[in-house]
Amino acid sequence: MHNSFKPHKRILMGPGPSNVNPKVLDAMSKAPLGHLDPQFIELMDEIKSLLKYTFKTENESTFVLSGPGSLGMEACLVNLVEPGDKVIVCVGGYFANRMTQIVEKIGGNVVVVKETWGRAIEPAKLEDALKTNPDTKVVAFVHAETSTGALSNIKQLSEIAHKYNCLTIADTVTSLGATDVYVDEWNLDAVYSCSQKGLACVAGMSPIIFSERAVQHIKNRKTPIQSWFNDLNLLSVYWSGVKRIYHHTAPSNQFYGLHEALLILKEEGIENAWRRHKENSAKFISKLKQLGLDPFVPEGERIPNLITVKIPSDTDEAKVRNELLNKHNLEIGAGLGELAGKIWRIGLMGYNSNEKMIDYCVGALKDVLNK
Amino acid sequence: MHNSFKPHKRILMGPGPSNVNPKVLDAMSKAPLGHLDPQFIELMDEIKSLLKYTFKTENESTFVLSGPGSLGMEACLVNLVEPGDKVIVCVGGYFANRMTQIVEKIGGNVVVVKETWGRAIEPAKLEDALKTNPDTKVVAFVHAETSTGALSNIKQLSEIAHKYNCLTIADTVTSLGATDVYVDEWNLDAVYSCSQKGLACVAGMSPIIFSERAVQHIKNRKTPIQSWFNDLNLLSVYWSGVKRIYHHTAPSNQFYGLHEALLILKEEGIENAWRRHKENSAKFISKLKQLGLDPFVPEGERIPNLITVKIPSDTDEAKVRNELLNKHNLEIGAGLGELAGKIWRIGLMGYNSNEKMIDYCVGALKDVLNK
Repeated sequence: MHNSFKPHKRILMGPGPSNVNPKVLDAMSKAPLGHLDPQFIELMDEIKSLLKYTFKTENESTFVLSGPGSLGMEACLVNLVEPGDKVIVCVGGYFANRMTQIVEKIGGNVVVVKETWGRAIEPAKLEDALKTNPDTKVVAFVHAETSTGALSNIKQLSEIAHKYNCLTIADTVTSLGATDVYVDEWNLDAVYSCSQKGLACVAGMSPIIFSERAVQHIKNRKTPIQSWFNDLNLLSVYWSGVKRIYHHTAPSNQFYGLHEALLILKEEGIENAWRRHKENSAKFISKLKQLGLDPFVPEGERIPNLITVKIPSDTDEAKVRNELLNKHNLEIGAGLGELAGKIWRIGLMGYNSNEKMIDYCVGALKDVLNK
Repeated sequence: MHNSFKPHKRILMGPGPSNVNPKVLDAMSKAPLGHLDPQFIELMDEIKSLLKYTFKTENESTFVLSGPGSLGMEACLVNLVEPGDKVIVCVGGYFANRMTQIVEKIGGNVVVVKETWGRAIEPAKLEDALKTNPDTKVVAFVHAETSTGALSNIKQLSEIAHKYNCLTIADTVTSLGATDVYVDEWNLDAVYSCSQKGLACVAGMSPIIFSERAVQHIKNRKTPIQSWFNDLNLLSVYWSGVKRIYHHTAPSNQFYGLHEALLILKEEGIENAWRRHKENSAKFISKLKQLGLDPFVPEGERIPNLITVKIPSDTDEAKVRNELLNKHNLEIGAGLGELAGKIWRIGLMGYNSNEKMIDYCVGALKDVLNK
């Protein structure tokens, strides 16, 4: 018996994946191409150029990793960090904490700048840590902390890090495409993101960039990069070489989807997309407040496209999410780590950042919460 | 200007990717699901069960890595090998050689059992190496060496390895789904494959299994696994836990495609698929011989679904491939590594293993080679 999979048509308003433009799905359903087909190499070049636009960078080392954002996190760290290197990680949530785990696996020496979950990283704390750890090589931080909803000022964090001659690694998983990101202006050395949030594509790819400074640093490493798959030196001959040399078999159909999503984003204009996310976020938050749902993150520190709200007392939060899913086909996100049971995470991003989705979500919450 | 990508309709008869059943592309174009959606978890369970059927295994640690086969290679090695461990790698081609590079990056101590490129690994050579290296922990080998077209008897290699109390790692990238693979019967401890060859899906996923013996070995490691993304302990709570815990955002649409491809394979029956590949291979080779193209690998050691032929002298091999591509929309593979310029690699696998494709390829070669 042949039971093809028929996914429910969910409204995805969790922390990502989000729904995608049908054009993206259409692009993905085209016939596959070989990973060294001249037409596919052209597609890779176009993706690269569209990503430079999206990241606001001129860095030549702009790629897509053939795996999700978490692989991008590991790739940035494993290329820049050598065993024994001191690495400061600014931790205000689950994903920054994951960075510390990866640095430990690499054999790096982690120093944590600790921030309250739900708050932007306090730049002064980073400066203090750098003063007491002048031998730090790399400073890593998360722009939009998906687990808490807090947005940090990474322009400022990067300035401080460079003042102490450190390289910077920035997680833009939840910000890219939806919130202002200026890789070159902010002097970021290694940056990774994902495909399924602000870029409004399906999940599974990780756009990544390395600055010229990072590339030189990698070339001058004393020890080999511990990973083969994520080794920038090997990846770059496939993505950038004059003659492209096989590294791995790229997922052609995923790349078709990403290309289409990036075209749609460029057509809108990245600044317009940023503005749209901010405006819709403000509207959404005011409607949530009317339902008695308070934002978890203080104003001025919120990720526009990922809104976290405190769960009202006496609420069976899992029951609410189940009802939203089963009755309204609406997915919202649970809290993660120490915020489990305390907040919901509601994504309003990419293709879904519009008034229709705001109203749908508010209506469903109203129904389920009996407001 | 919005220039959506319009891939050529290539006939993919290189070493993979191969063409896919339109049903697979149709499945991939469905709306995405969240990675913790109950329906998506059910899909993962179904994929797991279909993969057990395909791998001929009952191992509970059967997953799909959200990245290509090369990531699967790294995952098997990084989980089983600790720095300082002695690892024998049987090398008769480019991909086995890549294994040695990864072992070195992990800090393992590599011993190479060297075989002529284009020949099956001689089991006696492995036994000799184990006799002189009784402290070996892991033996790694490639079943179907994609770079040469040679198929090794990994049942026998595994028997020898276990006689010396070693764990075994098998690359089934080019064999799974197209050539007999019996993971449990052959006592293989860690096995990886890809999605775009015998499984007849698009590229970008790596089915992977670990035996109970491998899982115990990993639990008893003295050092942490160097990779976070590929850490079996973290992956398995997402794939197998009673309560599924978030690890990374799985590529839902890729999984839809894989599920559909595995259903199609099960519908045919895996033994029937193996037989089909063998029969078509024999027909194809006899027609190639009529064109004066001789198989590179001796009879009895050939991968049924990947045929390598010697390039006739006085042939501009790149020109031939370009003409096949541009005039006939047909992709065949170039030689890799030390076989570059010496052989072509022609895939006859999955959806493409049929008489129509044989005739198409033979006709195109006849035209371009002026036979």
